[in-house]
Amino acid sequence: MLIEPGKLLAQINSPADLKKFPKDKLVQICDELRQFIIDNVSVYGGHFGASLGVVELTVALHYVLNTPEDQLVWDVGHQAYGHKILTGRRDKFHTNRVYGGLSGFPKRKESEYDTFGVGHSSTSISAALGMAVGSKYKNSNIQHVAVIGDGAMTGGMAFEGMNHAGVSDSNILIILNDNCMSIDPNVGALKDYLTDITTSHTYNKVKDEVWKMLGKLSKFGTSAQEIISKVEGGLKSALLNQSNLFESLNLRYFGPVDGHDVNHLAEILSDLKDIPGPKILHCITMKGKGFEPAENGNQTTWHAPGTFDKVTGEIYKKKPSKPQPPKYQQVFGHTIVELAEKNDKIMGVTPAMPSGSSLNIMMEAMPDRAFDVGIAEQHAVTFSAGLATRGLVPFCNIYSTFMQRAYDQVVHDVCLQNLPVVFCLDRAGFAGADGPTHHGAYDIAYFRCIPNLVVAAPMNEEELRNMMYSASEHGAPYSIRYPRGQGVMPEWRTPLEKIPTGQGRVVKEGEDVAILTLGHIGNYAVEACETLAEEGLNPAHFDMRFVKPLDSDLLHEVFGKFKKVVTVEDGCLMGGFGSAVTEWMIDNGYQSQIKRLGIPDEVVEHGTQLELHKQCGFDPAGIADAVRSMAEVSTAK
Amino acid sequence: MLIEPGKLLAQINSPADLKKFPKDKLVQICDELRQFIIDNVSVYGGHFGASLGVVELTVALHYVLNTPEDQLVWDVGHQAYGHKILTGRRDKFHTNRVYGGLSGFPKRKESEYDTFGVGHSSTSISAALGMAVGSKYKNSNIQHVAVIGDGAMTGGMAFEGMNHAGVSDSNILIILNDNCMSIDPNVGALKDYLTDITTSHTYNKVKDEVWKMLGKLSKFGTSAQEIISKVEGGLKSALLNQSNLFESLNLRYFGPVDGHDVNHLAEILSDLKDIPGPKILHCITMKGKGFEPAENGNQTTWHAPGTFDKVTGEIYKKKPSKPQPPKYQQVFGHTIVELAEKNDKIMGVTPAMPSGSSLNIMMEAMPDRAFDVGIAEQHAVTFSAGLATRGLVPFCNIYSTFMQRAYDQVVHDVCLQNLPVVFCLDRAGFAGADGPTHHGAYDIAYFRCIPNLVVAAPMNEEELRNMMYSASEHGAPYSIRYPRGQGVMPEWRTPLEKIPTGQGRVVKEGEDVAILTLGHIGNYAVEACETLAEEGLNPAHFDMRFVKPLDSDLLHEVFGKFKKVVTVEDGCLMGGFGSAVTEWMIDNGYQSQIKRLGIPDEVVEHGTQLELHKQCGFDPAGIADAVRSMAEVSTAK
Repeated sequence: MLIEPGKLLAQINSPADLKKFPKDKLVQICDELRQFIIDNVSVYGGHFGASLGVVELTVALHYVLNTPEDQLVWDVGHQAYGHKILTGRRDKFHTNRVYGGLSGFPKRKESEYDTFGVGHSSTSISAALGMAVGSKYKNSNIQHVAVIGDGAMTGGMAFEGMNHAGVSDSNILIILNDNCMSIDPNVGALKDYLTDITTSHTYNKVKDEVWKMLGKLSKFGTSAQEIISKVEGGLKSALLNQSNLFESLNLRYFGPVDGHDVNHLAEILSDLKDIPGPKILHCITMKGKGFEPAENGNQTTWHAPGTFDKVTGEIYKKKPSKPQPPKYQQVFGHTIVELAEKNDKIMGVTPAMPSGSSLNIMMEAMPDRAFDVGIAEQHAVTFSAGLATRGLVPFCNIYSTFMQRAYDQVVHDVCLQNLPVVFCLDRAGFAGADGPTHHGAYDIAYFRCIPNLVVAAPMNEEELRNMMYSASEHGAPYSIRYPRGQGVMPEWRTPLEKIPTGQGRVVKEGEDVAILTLGHIGNYAVEACETLAEEGLNPAHFDMRFVKPLDSDLLHEVFGKFKKVVTVEDGCLMGGFGSAVTEWMIDNGYQSQIKRLGIPDEVVEHGTQLELHKQCGFDPAGIADAVRSMAEVSTAK
Repeated sequence: MLIEPGKLLAQINSPADLKKFPKDKLVQICDELRQFIIDNVSVYGGHFGASLGVVELTVALHYVLNTPEDQLVWDVGHQAYGHKILTGRRDKFHTNRVYGGLSGFPKRKESEYDTFGVGHSSTSISAALGMAVGSKYKNSNIQHVAVIGDGAMTGGMAFEGMNHAGVSDSNILIILNDNCMSIDPNVGALKDYLTDITTSHTYNKVKDEVWKMLGKLSKFGTSAQEIISKVEGGLKSALLNQSNLFESLNLRYFGPVDGHDVNHLAEILSDLKDIPGPKILHCITMKGKGFEPAENGNQTTWHAPGTFDKVTGEIYKKKPSKPQPPKYQQVFGHTIVELAEKNDKIMGVTPAMPSGSSLNIMMEAMPDRAFDVGIAEQHAVTFSAGLATRGLVPFCNIYSTFMQRAYDQVVHDVCLQNLPVVFCLDRAGFAGADGPTHHGAYDIAYFRCIPNLVVAAPMNEEELRNMMYSASEHGAPYSIRYPRGQGVMPEWRTPLEKIPTGQGRVVKEGEDVAILTLGHIGNYAVEACETLAEEGLNPAHFDMRFVKPLDSDLLHEVFGKFKKVVTVEDGCLMGGFGSAVTEWMIDNGYQSQIKRLGIPDEVVEHGTQLELHKQCGFDPAGIADAVRSMAEVSTAK
């Protein structure tokens, strides 16, 4: 269903159309763009607060810049809905995040206006700097702009990018979109610092003077270069030069400015185009701006609220007819508190995902034992390693896809030293609507090659709880991967029991074909077995639970009995769980056929988890097909 | 051979012994420690300049701190020779970096004084902060000190650590060891900033006033807390507070101070122990301090010079009797220039390893096309991705072990977008004397699971050159791994030829057993075949060249003919090259035996590359053994 855009927005199919409007229409265009986002997200869901917060910035940028020649990079990208709508995707916007539809993030394949694919945080400065250095080499004088939030700015690679940008002499503008929020409230010293400079009288005074001067002089035709050299020669060098974190890194700092004054923004951006070299514009914005329930409500809730009533702000919640299984996230959140109450060594660490991971439950219950360290996965892991050296047992909860950001720290700081850090890999397997940047596809392959690390995955809530308990007493590195979303056990608060490290279990005895599963996806195999039973097929099913160490005893049983084996995992086939089973079989001299089901070696786009499982052939029907075809064929070359 | 220590140093077997000396002996102890390092490294080799630069800091720290209860973390750790010598390892120090001997880096298994194992850069703040938060939770009031260089400070995770430290209210002292150097001269805006504040009159004046006040008041018994509050109330708040990058992050900044005045350092460290909360001490030191040829010579050369004449400073070079093959590093360095001269799209990127990688050859020849971005692997990769979006073909050269630091960027910023970045993974396989933190053991496993990425490894110089050429025209992500050290072709400047992506080659036809090798290690297989030929065995040998895509045609030939296959790789067995071949075989319905040789699933310590290959059974003799034992046995379960 197409949402009707406002009168002006309806005429904008590209930034060229936007530029046709006089400046005095920009406020109305912003209003219409904001309303269009509200209308869409309230019906179709998606990210919300971030895009509302940058409506004015988005309009101003496309009004002033010469996109797509000028290069505009959105950090993370969940704030880029307005950008998409203004750049030719308005009429497809209702397909946002739907299987086969628009991506929820900027994506090079989708549009020439999406100069750099994003999803993970803190990449925009490095990417835009690469573009700017490339342009300089090619003697092109286009603009390069990175829009980055204050949350993303805490990620280490943003600092690495600034350190290089400051000496690059290239034409890059970093726009710091300062709304004091990540998905959860932003944390850390940098946040405090930004608040300080935003509220400081000196700074505000300087800011006003600078902009007044800019405004006055430009009316007389003075070029921005002249203005800025005057400013730097006087007022600014005394008060601002190197007295600011960003100036320390040789970035010319401008601001803070009101990120919701579209006309002022357009003026500033226009002026800044003429100022060469690396620079930063500090914009103050509000997540959820212009939608009262989001402005005044819980900003974390309004980050991606699902569908809601766009008048009252009531968020729709499906009322289930019977008790539902919990989300794995909730099981994690409650179980870590339960464990920590009994074991005073247990600590909790999250890099900026307290509500997403449910570690917020522990942060509230035990504030001295659970830490949100900001968007800083590398630090989160090594900080956990440091805690472990003091005899503590940190549970470091990181989404599978973001664990890629801390890979070296897992190898170098935790596993080589054999420190007892427990990694909980949330969102392992397909992430769903967030798409390829967020799929937790690779963790089994990239974790199982690391010495000393246990790699486990629970098939249900009870196993997750028992693995967490077992991990807390294991005394060495231990990882547990589990998916986004609901489990299968409405009665999930089972008594805690230890699972011996590396021990799998028989889910179902059977004959002819053995299905070996890892993790939640095992429940699909249960469904498949039910279907197959109706056809008279009776495969065995094993929940292996561990990729590393593998259960050798169980595998000897399996390969001793079965000449046909299907492995199933919600992870990449290359080097994953099925690969580990295959290695084991060959190392142990067995010669069964193995069919491996999992994520193929390609970029799988967004969709619901089930849609993607189906596409890759490991939904219940796919598993049943694999068993069927194996049961029929038995020749080997 | 034991090197004789000086008279005082001979009496120091632990920091407790050091503390027995009066303060007026510290200078002599420093002299003796420095001489002992010079005497040892000149004979046995090892890291040199860094440890000489922190002799005074090392002595002062152990004199003032209560180690090992107080937690001292050395970033990177190649500056920790003095620390090792003072903490009970003096008489073993001649075994430094030797197989079975001391590690060249701090290591928890080696000593209780080594609180955190290091090797990679920029981890110390996170680790020490974890310790400090752990201590606070346990109500322990010990000290936590991270010693970090200005080079390591540019790594993003150092910034992530500071951002957390600044709001942690925990007892951590960061000592910034500012010598303007990484292994190569340090680069970036931060370096310029540190130079500015070091040379600025205002800062030096403030520094002097502060320390004068500290000195004066402490003589009257005023506590350091009182002093600091006075300072902060007056002079400091006006001039320093938030006017400094570190103060912006809520770290109390002290310095800069002379890092070679041991008595002054001891006083300052003693004062700082009483000042609670997160703080940073900025020390100015000189790499190679106290050894004239290093002080005045090329500091990069003196980072790890090999053996040398300790009087004249002449670095010993073996004079080979016949022309030697080049190092792979040299082949890379010269070939990228050769390619870039013909193809103006080619650019070069290194994170702080211009001389180690030999990209310095291109940086000199084409300064606008080759970039040292500092210790910033994450940025290096995404910066390269940015360049690629502008139609350029960046060669991003990163050591295999350090590529772990940029794993997410390879996945998220390069491969998901299918951008034509060429990754050259130097030091792939065993690194040798640097040990487990530096072994490039995992890259095959962690790279081959990434979609769109070619994974290649040359067997010799010619293949490296041809792969670089092929990669430059491939138009999509391409990785090339090669080892540290010498190749096999004295006449290596062969004409450039394209290698079709994924095409292996027959090195030697044969019968009964097929050896499949990847990369340089294939030369061992050649040797093994020569040995076996003398015994009447005639295995075939295939240089697969690509892990991904695998050469399916060639593998059909191999598995069609051979029931016994040995795979050999200088990489981890779990998920590596042999694993890929095994997957392929099972997917394609063959049933040969496969014996996989490579790095086992354990932490392999340091030694020469050949010693480690031998230990893991894939030196020439090990490969011959594997072929022999396979040739004898032919049963399968």
